[in-house]
Amino acid sequence: MSEDLFEKIVAREIPADIVYETDSVLAFRDINPQAPIHILIIPKQKIRTINDIADGQATLVGELYLAARDIAKQQGFAEDGYRVVMNCGENAGQAVWHIHLHLLAGRPLAWPPG
Amino acid sequence: MSEDLFEKIVAREIPADIVYETDSVLAFRDINPQAPIHILIIPKQKIRTINDIADGQATLVGELYLAARDIAKQQGFAEDGYRVVMNCGENAGQAVWHIHLHLLAGRPLAWPPG
Repeated sequence: MSEDLFEKIVAREIPADIVYETDSVLAFRDINPQAPIHILIIPKQKIRTINDIADGQATLVGELYLAARDIAKQQGFAEDGYRVVMNCGENAGQAVWHIHLHLLAGRPLAWPPG
Repeated sequence: MSEDLFEKIVAREIPADIVYETDSVLAFRDINPQAPIHILIIPKQKIRTINDIADGQATLVGELYLAARDIAKQQGFAEDGYRVVMNCGENAGQAVWHIHLHLLAGRPLAWPPG
């Protein structure tokens, strides 16, 4: 009962539209998309927030970007471009306490980013 | 003459308001801030875009997040929260072809992120 929403998705206890998976990373479509393509990329291992990333987890966090790179190529939007976003805490509206990289694509993205 | 703007900052050929540095990472204030705190975190080694990250560079990319974590703690906004953003290509408005993680803090950040 202590599992967060994303741990349940990793464990296949609740469904998600999974688009990419490696030994350490899972990616699935956001259920409340903010762009034509909106995918969440997470480490399977739980990390609560950016503040909680341990020094030894740098590679795991970087693998989220390798996933973004691969998904962009596979889905054909690498050249048009995309934005990745990670929220930490209340001022950014972090909603699930398991870090997740938002990958947004398929439309021009305005500045500032929120 | 082939150096990009951020390579020149790394080389101290042009000035920047540097706030954090390690062997592999440099962080400095954005000259066009979009929030009370707006810092750019870059790898000293040039990587053009997310599409160009090599598999072996995952740790380096993850170190940008360790920098964000450390800066948030040092500057006292870790608990209030912050957002990190990286743009890739034209749809996202990438302006310098050397990857850079935008770190925004000091105000509530709206959704969607652009």
